[in-house]
Amino acid sequence: MAEKKTLETLFHDTLKDIYYAERKILKALPKMARGASSSQLKAAFEKHRDQTEVHVERLQQVFEILGKRAQGKTCEAIEGLIAEGEEILDGFKGQPAIDAGLASAAQAVEHYEIARYGTLARWAGELGLKDAQKLLATTLQEETATDAALTALAEKTLNQSAMAA
Amino acid sequence: MAEKKTLETLFHDTLKDIYYAERKILKALPKMARGASSSQLKAAFEKHRDQTEVHVERLQQVFEILGKRAQGKTCEAIEGLIAEGEEILDGFKGQPAIDAGLASAAQAVEHYEIARYGTLARWAGELGLKDAQKLLATTLQEETATDAALTALAEKTLNQSAMAA
Repeated sequence: MAEKKTLETLFHDTLKDIYYAERKILKALPKMARGASSSQLKAAFEKHRDQTEVHVERLQQVFEILGKRAQGKTCEAIEGLIAEGEEILDGFKGQPAIDAGLASAAQAVEHYEIARYGTLARWAGELGLKDAQKLLATTLQEETATDAALTALAEKTLNQSAMAA
Repeated sequence: MAEKKTLETLFHDTLKDIYYAERKILKALPKMARGASSSQLKAAFEKHRDQTEVHVERLQQVFEILGKRAQGKTCEAIEGLIAEGEEILDGFKGQPAIDAGLASAAQAVEHYEIARYGTLARWAGELGLKDAQKLLATTLQEETATDAALTALAEKTLNQSAMAA
């Protein structure tokens, strides 16, 4: 009989999903930074790119804790989320609402990560993987902070620029 | 010269995106409920299906406020997110971790909606569409509450069941 699929299987599968997603995000962020018109938004994307490198490393450490090879598996959600960012890059190029649109697309990506890291951190706790839980919770905090920073930037400047036609 | 794409254009585009997404979610939730093993999770999905019907109606009201026809546009993110739920339905059928996996897939969908409604409600406020802002903020609250309820249910029972191989 095949092995039962328990919380550990699900944890490992979801880890592969977010590992794939983070590496896609790492490639997408420089494009988003180049497409942004606001220098503050460019800087926010560049800062988050650097953070994402660390997130990838933390995931590699979690794979190590599990005694598994770091390996991604196609994550259709992130493909769709990044495609929506690219639609904004193409459809709003040179337009007043480009930055508000890019920030919003990035926040949809952040929320995907918040959902995934939230779940993974809780599962790691249930599985007694305290070190993994700590690594995942640290990334979760950073994603949450990035989302909040993008909201603040949008409210402070980007949405106003988008209204000035 | 073509019309400039301002915050209003972006608001209308994003409204079409979430309108498409909500109607996809409305179709996906009964499948998720049928696939769930826990009666509490089934009930949570059924309750959220009923709420989603109201969310669709609220979006129709927002289109009306804008003086536009209620119309969806393909949202690649939701296609990907729902595909991930279907992977769980197929891959974990009859397995201990099916409910933990379905709850987690549903939470990723909730977070997509939280990102979208958060942005839309703020934009409606900036555009002076107070009634639209209120409708969008009400749905945002319900999505946030659904996400929290799924976390609580997972922590209380689903994750435990997933460990009992």
